[in-house]
Amino acid sequence: MQPDHDTILAPATATGGALAVIRISGDDAFAVCDRVFRGRSPLAEAQGYTVHYGRIVDGDRTIDDVLATVFRAPHSYTGENSVELSCHGSAYIVSEILRLLFAAGGRMATPGEFTLRAYFAGKLDLSQAEAVADLIASSSRAAHALASNQMRGGYSAALDSLRDRLLHLTSLLELELDFSEEDVEFADRQELQRIMQDIDQHLNQLINTFALGNALKEGIPVAIVGAPNAGKSTLLNRLLNEERAIVSEIAGTTRDVIEESVCIEGIRFRFIDTAGIRTTDDRLERMGIERTLQRIARARIVIRLLDMAHFTGSVPAPEFELPERCSLLTVVNKIDLQPDISLPQGVIGLSARDGAGLDTLRQALLQSTGAEELDQNDIVVSNSRHFEALSIARSALQRALNGLHEGLPADLLSEEIRQVIRHIGEITGRGVILSDEILGTIFSKFCIGK
Amino acid sequence: MQPDHDTILAPATATGGALAVIRISGDDAFAVCDRVFRGRSPLAEAQGYTVHYGRIVDGDRTIDDVLATVFRAPHSYTGENSVELSCHGSAYIVSEILRLLFAAGGRMATPGEFTLRAYFAGKLDLSQAEAVADLIASSSRAAHALASNQMRGGYSAALDSLRDRLLHLTSLLELELDFSEEDVEFADRQELQRIMQDIDQHLNQLINTFALGNALKEGIPVAIVGAPNAGKSTLLNRLLNEERAIVSEIAGTTRDVIEESVCIEGIRFRFIDTAGIRTTDDRLERMGIERTLQRIARARIVIRLLDMAHFTGSVPAPEFELPERCSLLTVVNKIDLQPDISLPQGVIGLSARDGAGLDTLRQALLQSTGAEELDQNDIVVSNSRHFEALSIARSALQRALNGLHEGLPADLLSEEIRQVIRHIGEITGRGVILSDEILGTIFSKFCIGK
Repeated sequence: MQPDHDTILAPATATGGALAVIRISGDDAFAVCDRVFRGRSPLAEAQGYTVHYGRIVDGDRTIDDVLATVFRAPHSYTGENSVELSCHGSAYIVSEILRLLFAAGGRMATPGEFTLRAYFAGKLDLSQAEAVADLIASSSRAAHALASNQMRGGYSAALDSLRDRLLHLTSLLELELDFSEEDVEFADRQELQRIMQDIDQHLNQLINTFALGNALKEGIPVAIVGAPNAGKSTLLNRLLNEERAIVSEIAGTTRDVIEESVCIEGIRFRFIDTAGIRTTDDRLERMGIERTLQRIARARIVIRLLDMAHFTGSVPAPEFELPERCSLLTVVNKIDLQPDISLPQGVIGLSARDGAGLDTLRQALLQSTGAEELDQNDIVVSNSRHFEALSIARSALQRALNGLHEGLPADLLSEEIRQVIRHIGEITGRGVILSDEILGTIFSKFCIGK
Repeated sequence: MQPDHDTILAPATATGGALAVIRISGDDAFAVCDRVFRGRSPLAEAQGYTVHYGRIVDGDRTIDDVLATVFRAPHSYTGENSVELSCHGSAYIVSEILRLLFAAGGRMATPGEFTLRAYFAGKLDLSQAEAVADLIASSSRAAHALASNQMRGGYSAALDSLRDRLLHLTSLLELELDFSEEDVEFADRQELQRIMQDIDQHLNQLINTFALGNALKEGIPVAIVGAPNAGKSTLLNRLLNEERAIVSEIAGTTRDVIEESVCIEGIRFRFIDTAGIRTTDDRLERMGIERTLQRIARARIVIRLLDMAHFTGSVPAPEFELPERCSLLTVVNKIDLQPDISLPQGVIGLSARDGAGLDTLRQALLQSTGAEELDQNDIVVSNSRHFEALSIARSALQRALNGLHEGLPADLLSEEIRQVIRHIGEITGRGVILSDEILGTIFSKFCIGK
């Protein structure tokens, strides 16, 4: 894929607001705009970072009064000449202006094409570009923090540092090749092993953050297991209602509410519907239970909701196997039925009806995520493409470590390490040439106008 | 209602785009923004019509990278100091930034409050403010043209000219009062009558444009009357599908599609569902027919769809009374069944299935609107509030004309004319003090952020 600089157009805002913004970028962005923009003077003569009032015209007909913001290459998002037109937020007006700009020589941008150009211009690396999309999609404080850290480049810096250390190793090894007849070892094999093991440990740490990072980004999957009348939906409604009240405090902001998803102290939890579990001969019911077990297997937290009406004072053994790295919260609901009962250690008493115990449950959910142990500046992998690249990189590194152990010659060792570097490089796009297919896949996930 | 200048905040774009814009306006707009904005220098020091890159921060935490556009009073939409923050289009980020600006001393704007301030600042009159809301809501070329003309002030100028002429009359009449002991007539009664009749004619013309203006704004109501298998839905689908194809040519623009509404050459037609009409003793069926007749009464165009399969060669008398100012289009569908038949004069032959005759029907629909006779600069009333004010103004003017005829004294005559002036003034807000209730009703129809 080669960087184009023809003039691309796209609406950058959603339909339905008071105003709408149209983005134009490319070598001829000013010329294209000036064919339909009538201001005090042409935009081509304007300084960067200035705003100009004018009209968009179609011959004699005025389409709208707009504000045009001018960005001059290279000081723009794409690194190209760019204009942002702010017009009245009517879908009709936006489509009319796009039609005119199209006729004036622009073309409609593909999803993410502005960010692709920013990438080609070296404004941001691949992982930062992906963070832009994540940032736009973020709907919780935790998801926002992940995307924000990644966009700001701390993540890239950590990967670059690993990459630089590996490059240093290969250069030492390749130096040996130049002097191969003299049989010298520039790279002390013990020192080499120490560095490679250290990098391996770093990679392993990063890989291990993915389960949490992905869950924080997409929402922590929580399976609630319990008999149908144990109070699951009352509990969910109570959590949802309180959240809705918080959201509606700020007027005018709407968000797509995902069914049965709740933000608690900035972390999104996705509650997964499950059927009850019991031993049964009924084939249909067993299929339902099978599905429940599959859902439990994907959960990071399982809330086992017991009904006080059937509670005997001790917690029965679970009917399911808890997946690895999954936390179990045992909750006895309807404690208002027997307020004086003392529950076993570690069991949370709850009255979903009157809200008693809800805060304790919330805190238990938060603690179970493991997110509290994260530092603000910790590098967390939340992108599955990165997770795969790191996993492959680590496999290559372990092959290299084995090779080192087995006395592999410097050139083959160096080649293995170059594989590690390439896979780490794929994350940021630094030092590697990525196929059109990879770039296409990454940027097609973006929205139009970004 | 008094103009406030405290700092108001609102999202100005809908949720879901690549970017979002937040508007801030008020005496302290810069100070409020500078509490959360970190750029190269404070916005308070920036020149108007310039753009500044910076971060929105919550203590140590960066919420987003933004572009801040600075407008200095009085050169802004509201006439006040204003800032527009352009951030990533995430609902979470928008709500976080609003939360921080709120904490920094701003308050959430009510719907239309920015435009209300623009009105108080004399940036636009009431009819222009209303046109802003119409412009945002416009979904057809015709509705856009109406709103655009009204916003640009040609409409206000026409009303002001009527008002000025009436004011001139009252000043002549009131001059007579000052010299009442001398029994002079500064205002020649015949000349007075001529001017008032001329104004009356103008008012009548304006009032008469409302039916068309309102229909162009809301969509021309078209009732299709025909037996269930006459091909009504095939016809509608054909009209809709072709329109959808046009809309989808421009990628990335979505619009709320109103069921059974079609744009033909820039004019929106709203097709009204009707049941068939026939004489019957069945009570339920008669209720259905009654509803159909009510719908026909509200239509501006009735398409009477006859089925070629039952067509005898002559058009039977309609089963309904055509409302005043309503056009009737008689259409025989399924002409592909008998391609050789010659239809009576004025009857449109159609094959909804293969599309034959569709263009003829479209042209007949367009001609029936009466919109083709409109000149681009014609003053057309499309707002029901204006229609009411003009109707009341005209009643008062006719009382004045009667009074003139009956030799009413100058002071009472002048008082009647002042009533006319007041009602015309209510449209633009010029020369009258409008109640909070009227202003509240007008601006509550706006969206947040406008």
